[in-house]
Amino acid sequence: MKGRLFGVGVGPGDPELLTLKALRVLQQVDVIAYFTRKGKLGHARAIVGPHLSGFHHEEPLVYPLTTEISARDPRYAAALDAFYTQSEARLRTHLEAGRSVAILSEGDPLFFGSYMHLHVRLHDDYETQVIPGITAMSASWAAMKRPFCQGQEVVSVLPGTLADEQLARHLERSDAIVIMKVGRHLARIRQLLDRLQLIDDAQYIEYCGQPSERCVPLSQLAPDDAAPYLSLILVPGARALSAAGTVANEVTG
Amino acid sequence: MKGRLFGVGVGPGDPELLTLKALRVLQQVDVIAYFTRKGKLGHARAIVGPHLSGFHHEEPLVYPLTTEISARDPRYAAALDAFYTQSEARLRTHLEAGRSVAILSEGDPLFFGSYMHLHVRLHDDYETQVIPGITAMSASWAAMKRPFCQGQEVVSVLPGTLADEQLARHLERSDAIVIMKVGRHLARIRQLLDRLQLIDDAQYIEYCGQPSERCVPLSQLAPDDAAPYLSLILVPGARALSAAGTVANEVTG
Repeated sequence: MKGRLFGVGVGPGDPELLTLKALRVLQQVDVIAYFTRKGKLGHARAIVGPHLSGFHHEEPLVYPLTTEISARDPRYAAALDAFYTQSEARLRTHLEAGRSVAILSEGDPLFFGSYMHLHVRLHDDYETQVIPGITAMSASWAAMKRPFCQGQEVVSVLPGTLADEQLARHLERSDAIVIMKVGRHLARIRQLLDRLQLIDDAQYIEYCGQPSERCVPLSQLAPDDAAPYLSLILVPGARALSAAGTVANEVTG
Repeated sequence: MKGRLFGVGVGPGDPELLTLKALRVLQQVDVIAYFTRKGKLGHARAIVGPHLSGFHHEEPLVYPLTTEISARDPRYAAALDAFYTQSEARLRTHLEAGRSVAILSEGDPLFFGSYMHLHVRLHDDYETQVIPGITAMSASWAAMKRPFCQGQEVVSVLPGTLADEQLARHLERSDAIVIMKVGRHLARIRQLLDRLQLIDDAQYIEYCGQPSERCVPLSQLAPDDAAPYLSLILVPGARALSAAGTVANEVTG
């Protein structure tokens, strides 16, 4: 009998934000696979560390590239494609031998997660279960302790890598906003939010749920502050922020 | 010493989708509060049932209205406001007496959750912690087992209660789409997705994670099918659905 595949969301950083289902699967599977970089343990693997029994085989899937080739170079995509093909083959060996495999995914596996690269290659051939995880955005608004969206509000999740014009179009038409992958786009996004008069409600969060977590109003960052790749900016909906809006929730429901 | 307040996300229905943190808090607090309707246990309370030790006090907060007054009637908002004021007072009695209180919230407390009604009334006066939960949308795309969004895709979360014109404006400009609170708007939303040529990729999910879960392509619903209030429609991003797109993820990152 073939092994089963599990895509396991492990949440954004705090080991206590694993679900009971993720924990059960991790303690039952034969193989635990995860993406990582040369010489690193890998963030997803670090998150589950406190929960592992030790009675399993580990398959670290080590990204072939770091900064040697630019992400815009066609060789970058080719190298990644070869890496996923190779990773797929390694996991197939286990699955064909009847061993169950859990692929760890930071946050939620099917929401901007690297897990999808292997899911699309394997799920037609093996019984697959996806276990949702707490997203970085959920952990971020929980850390802010402010209502994020309510009632009839429209929420947009925007990659910070988008051009100003595209970002602005969505920012102007949405009530509550998540900007992901802020990283080196911080200064540009900040200017844009300032121009659109959204900066006063904007919150900046990095390393959410980890010891180095920083959660501050965006306007309080120093002009030359640098943001890590996986930092977030949140702009809560106006309704969510007003007590009146919280009552309107039911009314519009 | 005053008691502490916890907003606890309990996920969308499956008791195994509680986080370890939520479980720990539920087993430690003195009082467990939750919204419910007359004669019902309440969905959030039902979800945590298997996990409760029994050594706590329960505060069911029973909505004063069901269908006697239309949600558009001003008396509806007034009755709800009085209800939240009354609920706040009941919880303050516990908190002032030094008893810790957990307010259960289906899904994620600060993402369209009723918990916010009490959060805004209490969090200035008591030490408050919010524990994020798995959202219905995360559990839904996990149930679909299809990639939802990738790379530079824009995700919009839209209340199904919005008018056609507003919905269309967002549908046309987004890559991946979540339509919440479908309910009685099902036929109208379906027509709109059909007109915008989005219907072939649209999936319909109701009662996600519960025994009565139904997860089908939207186009397979019968024309007269009725949707419960908390049903969802998902339209995954085109990039997420193509294997090529999954490689482009890193390239754009």
